[in-house]
Amino acid sequence: MKMRAQEIADKLSGQLEGDGSVEIVAMSSLSEARAGDISFFTDSKYGKQLATTKASCVLVPRDWSGDCSARSVIRVESPNAAFAHVGALYAPPPVVRLPGVHPTAIIGQNVQLGKEVSVGAYTVIDENTVIGDRCVIEAQVFIGANVKIGNGGLIYAQVTVREGTIIGDRVILHSGVRLGGDGYGFNPVIKPDGSITIEKIPQIGIVELGDDVEIGCNTTIDRARFGRTRVGNSVKIDNLVQLGHNVQVGDYSGIIAQAGVAGSTHIGQGCIIWAQAGISGHLTIGDRGQVGPASGLSKDVPPGEFYLGLPAVPRRELGAQLLLPRTVDKLKARVAALEAKLSQLDAQ
Amino acid sequence: MKMRAQEIADKLSGQLEGDGSVEIVAMSSLSEARAGDISFFTDSKYGKQLATTKASCVLVPRDWSGDCSARSVIRVESPNAAFAHVGALYAPPPVVRLPGVHPTAIIGQNVQLGKEVSVGAYTVIDENTVIGDRCVIEAQVFIGANVKIGNGGLIYAQVTVREGTIIGDRVILHSGVRLGGDGYGFNPVIKPDGSITIEKIPQIGIVELGDDVEIGCNTTIDRARFGRTRVGNSVKIDNLVQLGHNVQVGDYSGIIAQAGVAGSTHIGQGCIIWAQAGISGHLTIGDRGQVGPASGLSKDVPPGEFYLGLPAVPRRELGAQLLLPRTVDKLKARVAALEAKLSQLDAQ
Amino acid sequence: MKMRAQEIADKLSGQLEGDGSVEIVAMSSLSEARAGDISFFTDSKYGKQLATTKASCVLVPRDWSGDCSARSVIRVESPNAAFAHVGALYAPPPVVRLPGVHPTAIIGQNVQLGKEVSVGAYTVIDENTVIGDRCVIEAQVFIGANVKIGNGGLIYAQVTVREGTIIGDRVILHSGVRLGGDGYGFNPVIKPDGSITIEKIPQIGIVELGDDVEIGCNTTIDRARFGRTRVGNSVKIDNLVQLGHNVQVGDYSGIIAQAGVAGSTHIGQGCIIWAQAGISGHLTIGDRGQVGPASGLSKDVPPGEFYLGLPAVPRRELGAQLLLPRTVDKLKARVAALEAKLSQLDAQ
Repeated sequence: MKMRAQEIADKLSGQLEGDGSVEIVAMSSLSEARAGDISFFTDSKYGKQLATTKASCVLVPRDWSGDCSARSVIRVESPNAAFAHVGALYAPPPVVRLPGVHPTAIIGQNVQLGKEVSVGAYTVIDENTVIGDRCVIEAQVFIGANVKIGNGGLIYAQVTVREGTIIGDRVILHSGVRLGGDGYGFNPVIKPDGSITIEKIPQIGIVELGDDVEIGCNTTIDRARFGRTRVGNSVKIDNLVQLGHNVQVGDYSGIIAQAGVAGSTHIGQGCIIWAQAGISGHLTIGDRGQVGPASGLSKDVPPGEFYLGLPAVPRRELGAQLLLPRTVDKLKARVAALEAKLSQLDAQ
Repeated sequence: MKMRAQEIADKLSGQLEGDGSVEIVAMSSLSEARAGDISFFTDSKYGKQLATTKASCVLVPRDWSGDCSARSVIRVESPNAAFAHVGALYAPPPVVRLPGVHPTAIIGQNVQLGKEVSVGAYTVIDENTVIGDRCVIEAQVFIGANVKIGNGGLIYAQVTVREGTIIGDRVILHSGVRLGGDGYGFNPVIKPDGSITIEKIPQIGIVELGDDVEIGCNTTIDRARFGRTRVGNSVKIDNLVQLGHNVQVGDYSGIIAQAGVAGSTHIGQGCIIWAQAGISGHLTIGDRGQVGPASGLSKDVPPGEFYLGLPAVPRRELGAQLLLPRTVDKLKARVAALEAKLSQLDAQ
Repeated sequence: MKMRAQEIADKLSGQLEGDGSVEIVAMSSLSEARAGDISFFTDSKYGKQLATTKASCVLVPRDWSGDCSARSVIRVESPNAAFAHVGALYAPPPVVRLPGVHPTAIIGQNVQLGKEVSVGAYTVIDENTVIGDRCVIEAQVFIGANVKIGNGGLIYAQVTVREGTIIGDRVILHSGVRLGGDGYGFNPVIKPDGSITIEKIPQIGIVELGDDVEIGCNTTIDRARFGRTRVGNSVKIDNLVQLGHNVQVGDYSGIIAQAGVAGSTHIGQGCIIWAQAGISGHLTIGDRGQVGPASGLSKDVPPGEFYLGLPAVPRRELGAQLLLPRTVDKLKARVAALEAKLSQLDAQ
């Protein structure tokens, strides 16, 4: 994709100043721009970045004045909104998957495909599975037997969905998502002869996802020991997250990258689990509760509370912990003063 | 799957009270149950949950008395055991993979398949690989050249096993497992002209798994620099775990989700590495040693010891660390008392 | 692969002592060796390991003398270099992918394949994508539309590369790498009727990788919100790493396993992000900066600085933090001494 600055100005109904012939090939922030990039400027605190940017063109407010190192600027009403508009111009063309089943897809017995479903090359769908209307299943996906997927789903390449999984409407699964793998359940058993063996505990529940769930690349959600591991409506999960067996996540909650939740923990509605947080099993996080980044949670979080740290404590307590070195320093000074005073008294 | 409560009672030889016609569609704990669920009650401390559960039917002990909000209860000898029995009734039908090679599977030259092996659609097996009897290799698996897999293995969809890997008997690999990727080994080299280049250190060893190993979804185990990265017998590894090159894991050890072990570290027998633990390279963890959740280990763990924290220390030392804020508070009070006393003395 | 110790000695022009007929099947360090292994000894501090190793043969320096429990030793100029030589003998045979497109590969319209490209079985490449000369794309790979890949690339089985991604020359992508998944971007919106909905923020940028980049198994790199998520030249990324949308990584930097970098953070040149580090969004890490293992970074790192801990602080400050328990202990003793002295004064 290439456009000249003048063409972009025309599309934005903006007012170009400088070299309108410069070719724009990509978009960037002021600080990370390279030649050929277009950027935008809204806030005077970035004035220095504007004066030194390597961008070739910058969107600025109508009334802007100042220094700009770019070869052209375009004055617009809202640089922010205009930049989003440019984004649509420079976006990779949207991927269109026409309805239809690719001839190489393998569809098991009694599979029901809804209206206008698209199934990509080398995708395998096992028997008795039901796929709702307008679902797009990309290439190289594996969907096990007895799975139900609602309407309007989008499953990217190389996802696996194991048998019995139930998925709501408008769910998006990114590449590498693994739904329904066995939960981690083993029992060490000492045999009569004294030797040890490790018995696998059957994992015979399922995974159930509500409507409007989105799950990022390479995230894993284990099937329940019994019953279901459940992710509620409108839950948004980032990449490389792990949810153990029988975890329950309430509606509207978000779980950020690389967080992990151990078995049977209940996360309420509207919660945020920040990146790399680790949550022990059998806990309850109340509605709107949060667990901070890289925190390790080993107790319940009351509704609306924000727990943070390793081990995680309410945020206000963490502040005291972080101040501890300074607190100790002050205490040291006071003890030294006392010692000095006392040795003075002694000397008298 | 649907059964009426009465039918379930009959199958369990239990005694139904209440509405035997209610339809049961799923299983749950008392607290997370919804209408249509069956649950179970064993311990009086969950009496309040029993009185308010949304389950439609609850398994209770023969001699139970109390409040229950469900439309029916079933009296049984052991609610726990009976619930497992119900689990078998409600489990997704077991997946059966009949022996045989799917016509779309691509089997390389000199590949030896044992008796009653099942190979799924679009699976690729490179030359000279040997697969033992009764192995199930699901769809879309990649197995490189010169791999050896023992008897009774189960490899789920979309696993990759790189060349030269050796796998014991009865090994289970869940979807997205990556065996034998290159270890992380690079050398920065300054060239005669002063420029830097990063040289790749060849990773020419292999991965070797013992018997009865199970590995969870999207876990990665790197091939050795030289020799082998080795996982012992009956080792159970959870999802999203990383084992670096030349790591050794002793028999019967467990590694929980998202833990990572850096290159050449030796983990003994019967160890537990808890979720999200990070272990530096070239360390030794003695037999039955443990590393706590979210802990960062940078020194050896003696046999039987439990290390915890960031950086990880023996568990008893961590207690003192966690008490530090309270210890400092008490100290502050004592210093204040001393100061008061001294200023009193001064005033005399 | 099997060779007798004498054959190995001959190939190394080394001098064998002991049993030359012993069969060598693998390579190991002294401490982890088993019968049938060859190992090497360079440093007298490993003398005890040499005296008790279970290796069957050990490479030792020409002038070595001491105890060795192996059945044979081979004297060589440099045991280190000779061991690398043995490594080449015992390495799994290198995988050779002949140029050519496997008949089952699906190549979209207007795809341009360079000279001597190899495309494996069941790989899918969407329209308008350009693949450079001598690239090897293994089996079961998915490459979206409008992707550009330079010369000499190596893409292992089961990688996904989404539409619009730009990849430089000589890039290696290990199995399970996910390039170009949607970044995590959502806006909670309160509808006129008071209900909440979560809107997806379109992620319409791309991922761009420089030359000589290597990315480990199951690592995920999200496409930009606008513009590009960029990984510079010679950047080496380990397994299970997460890079959020619009992250920038400078040339020659390394990111070790399971680290995560949130959106829009800039990592300079020659930086090292150690294993399991978590880095918040919108931060800047100066050139040659480092973030320690399992650390949680929430502020900028100046060039050349090493930040460590949770929350991460400059390494020298962490030392004081780690000493805090001891500091408090000493302080306690001083306060007790003061108290004793004062009660003595009181008693007078």
